[in-house]
Amino acid sequence: MSLSAAAIVDQLSALLGANAVIGQADQMGHYLKEPRKRFHTGAAAVVLPASVEQVQAIVRWADDHGVGLIPQGGNTGLVGAQVPLRGDEVIISLAKLDRIRTIDTAAGTMTAEAGVILENAHKAAEAENTIFPLWIASQGSARIGGVLSSNAGGVNVLAYGNARELTMGVEAVMADGQLYQGLNSLKKDNTGYDLRDLLVGAEGTLGIITAATLKIFPKPEDYETTIVNIAGPEAALPLFELLRARIGGRLNAFEIVPQLGLELQLRHGFLDQDPTAGPSPWYSLIEVARMAGTEPGALQSAIEAAFEKGLIDNAVFAESLADRTRMWAFREQMSEVQSKEGASIKHDVSVPIAAVPQLIAEGIAAAQRLSPGIRPVPFGHMGDGNIHFNFSQPVGADPKVFMAENDEKMHEAIYEIVLRLGGSVSAEHGIGQLKIELLKQVKDPVALSLMHTIKRALDPKGILNPGKMLG
Amino acid sequence: MSLSAAAIVDQLSALLGANAVIGQADQMGHYLKEPRKRFHTGAAAVVLPASVEQVQAIVRWADDHGVGLIPQGGNTGLVGAQVPLRGDEVIISLAKLDRIRTIDTAAGTMTAEAGVILENAHKAAEAENTIFPLWIASQGSARIGGVLSSNAGGVNVLAYGNARELTMGVEAVMADGQLYQGLNSLKKDNTGYDLRDLLVGAEGTLGIITAATLKIFPKPEDYETTIVNIAGPEAALPLFELLRARIGGRLNAFEIVPQLGLELQLRHGFLDQDPTAGPSPWYSLIEVARMAGTEPGALQSAIEAAFEKGLIDNAVFAESLADRTRMWAFREQMSEVQSKEGASIKHDVSVPIAAVPQLIAEGIAAAQRLSPGIRPVPFGHMGDGNIHFNFSQPVGADPKVFMAENDEKMHEAIYEIVLRLGGSVSAEHGIGQLKIELLKQVKDPVALSLMHTIKRALDPKGILNPGKMLG
Repeated sequence: MSLSAAAIVDQLSALLGANAVIGQADQMGHYLKEPRKRFHTGAAAVVLPASVEQVQAIVRWADDHGVGLIPQGGNTGLVGAQVPLRGDEVIISLAKLDRIRTIDTAAGTMTAEAGVILENAHKAAEAENTIFPLWIASQGSARIGGVLSSNAGGVNVLAYGNARELTMGVEAVMADGQLYQGLNSLKKDNTGYDLRDLLVGAEGTLGIITAATLKIFPKPEDYETTIVNIAGPEAALPLFELLRARIGGRLNAFEIVPQLGLELQLRHGFLDQDPTAGPSPWYSLIEVARMAGTEPGALQSAIEAAFEKGLIDNAVFAESLADRTRMWAFREQMSEVQSKEGASIKHDVSVPIAAVPQLIAEGIAAAQRLSPGIRPVPFGHMGDGNIHFNFSQPVGADPKVFMAENDEKMHEAIYEIVLRLGGSVSAEHGIGQLKIELLKQVKDPVALSLMHTIKRALDPKGILNPGKMLG
Repeated sequence: MSLSAAAIVDQLSALLGANAVIGQADQMGHYLKEPRKRFHTGAAAVVLPASVEQVQAIVRWADDHGVGLIPQGGNTGLVGAQVPLRGDEVIISLAKLDRIRTIDTAAGTMTAEAGVILENAHKAAEAENTIFPLWIASQGSARIGGVLSSNAGGVNVLAYGNARELTMGVEAVMADGQLYQGLNSLKKDNTGYDLRDLLVGAEGTLGIITAATLKIFPKPEDYETTIVNIAGPEAALPLFELLRARIGGRLNAFEIVPQLGLELQLRHGFLDQDPTAGPSPWYSLIEVARMAGTEPGALQSAIEAAFEKGLIDNAVFAESLADRTRMWAFREQMSEVQSKEGASIKHDVSVPIAAVPQLIAEGIAAAQRLSPGIRPVPFGHMGDGNIHFNFSQPVGADPKVFMAENDEKMHEAIYEIVLRLGGSVSAEHGIGQLKIELLKQVKDPVALSLMHTIKRALDPKGILNPGKMLG
């Protein structure tokens, strides 16, 4: 028989002390309200362990009683992985495990606990003249455990990889309460299966990450940043290839934004001045890192070569930190500014890079056919093949009516194109509870079956983030 | 009841035709003789499927009859993963699946079947003015399936990562004969568990890789290569940090070799001339890639800075392809030349980079204490923390007596130091059958138990490379 919520609170309080447990629904808001405002299920309790041993004790208790645990970091996830699905789960917040255990610049590593806020990891790295190069919009709240469990990406994946590629080792509490001690600082270690990469991106369904050894990098001397005017994604592709061939691994970012993105930000006062070289159907934001002791100008000369080849129409280079900050604000405010224009329908998708122009052209055509007046605003990480394919409602439309009439059919249309092009229906944000049904429809059935087999083997009672990802 | 070898040959011949099956022991030499000459067990049969469907048919048949299958590529593995352990297994050679299915320079991907020889993958990439940057000594024979299953490393891991990091997706036949269709060309795909990285490095114990989508990169315009004279590994560490800070991701290689390595090669005629700037206790081979459109000289100016700081004593730069080839030959012949000096005891280990000097100092001291006259020749991928910690026998000693007296105790001494420094007892070569007992001794017991759980879940009858890695 399953425990009542009252019994859960009592038992957890007995285990950890009453201060570590929240049992009143009206005090759980911080842990239940998620950024998309789509999920509204309550929890039996919220528990805040203060040590790895306490996490183990909670998991052993949950295992004994068949209670579902939802690991939570900064509660910034966009697919509802970190909030309840059924209502009888216990949210286990890792927020109190917020220590940076070690930082070693010679080895190029930092070991951070799951509750460390991403921005604090940035600061710790920068204090040692290094960088931890994972930058996402929510970095002021997102915590390392969630960043890893969702395999977060962000704006520097091109040069440094996503969360998985930035992780050298993890420590995690498994479903039986045992501690997997996989922290290490080794670039090469071929002693068995890759458990690290299985836990990273598992959305807390296979184990609860309590700490990770992360890669840190020498801080570049400087950045060269430009916004170029381009005719469209078709021109962005050869431009990207030219930059990749000339600049290789130092190409940090290659983002694209359509004209409407700039218009909206200027209209709503998101930018104090236009960061571009003037009107253009599309813009590309490009950034290159300059390492100490190397000459500046690599980006400028590459852009000149692109200009000579007719790939770009105009360009403006950041000449100050303020310029660079404004250019990045232009890119990073894209999602937020859309909320000022009423409802928007969002897709976080990826395709092979060469297929990005086709994805955007077909997606815009399909949307305009299905919903005349809809305003496509596809933007994002062109260099990773990852487009945030968003649509703003027509001017003056009723947001609720627009969503009711268009949300489903726009998803269908975009995902059909993405899958036909060999793409992914969740490039960065994961599955959580938002995309469970979608995953069942689109994923290779053998892959799905393998995932279920692994889940059953590692969490036979189904206590870790129950129902998430696999349903 | 298990099938006799004769019945196995009959049934496989009926399934695929007699031409696809080798049943005579005297015709199996090519598939049984492995490079270390340590493993001498026969096989029930060798089978050579010519298609993915035939691989599936063989696995289904093996699953039905409980026959163990050993996936084999180029038979170049150094730990016996690809050759029999019991004697009743069937070797399934992927050599006939040797097609490069697609190559897409815009997407930066190549999809190659498991049987493609690594050198042929190099050639296919180079024909498109790109590179597949995984270079290992055995590349003329090693095949993609084995390269991935062993998570091979090599000399360019520093800039491009090991096999796992160079793989975007895999296709594999699972233990029940189902085909996992995980090929993709996506840089970002957060739709479930990371099955790719579980199969890469699994030594064929979880599935049989039949094809992979690999990352290819723009071909650098040129390379800058140098050999510098350094006092020892203690000096190599700050030199590496200086280069990493100035050159970042374009630093392709940072290798170290002791003086004895050069002496042996000159003595045995492995080099037509000395590639160094003159006698030195240690040498470091350093290489930087220069991308199209960038100025040469990045390495030279970094080396000058290192010279001013007193980190190096002398340096010579490659001024021709012949120079570069000779410099690399010096490094790559290190293992081979030791065989000319009698017996050698080998360790493929890694530690956090900052701990390499301590590893080498303590390892040499321990060896000389345990076995006076032994000749330490530690060399390798300093930039990855990966040292091939080899020892040549004393001059004039009897090879067999030397091995009998020293092999075990030298392993114990080196592994004790490695583990104390947070290192790995198998950095590149894997576990196979050589290091099964060692793995049991040194691996985190929770990790071992998780690996067993995954193995049982994905291969419940234990037909895939039985007994390897986990015992």
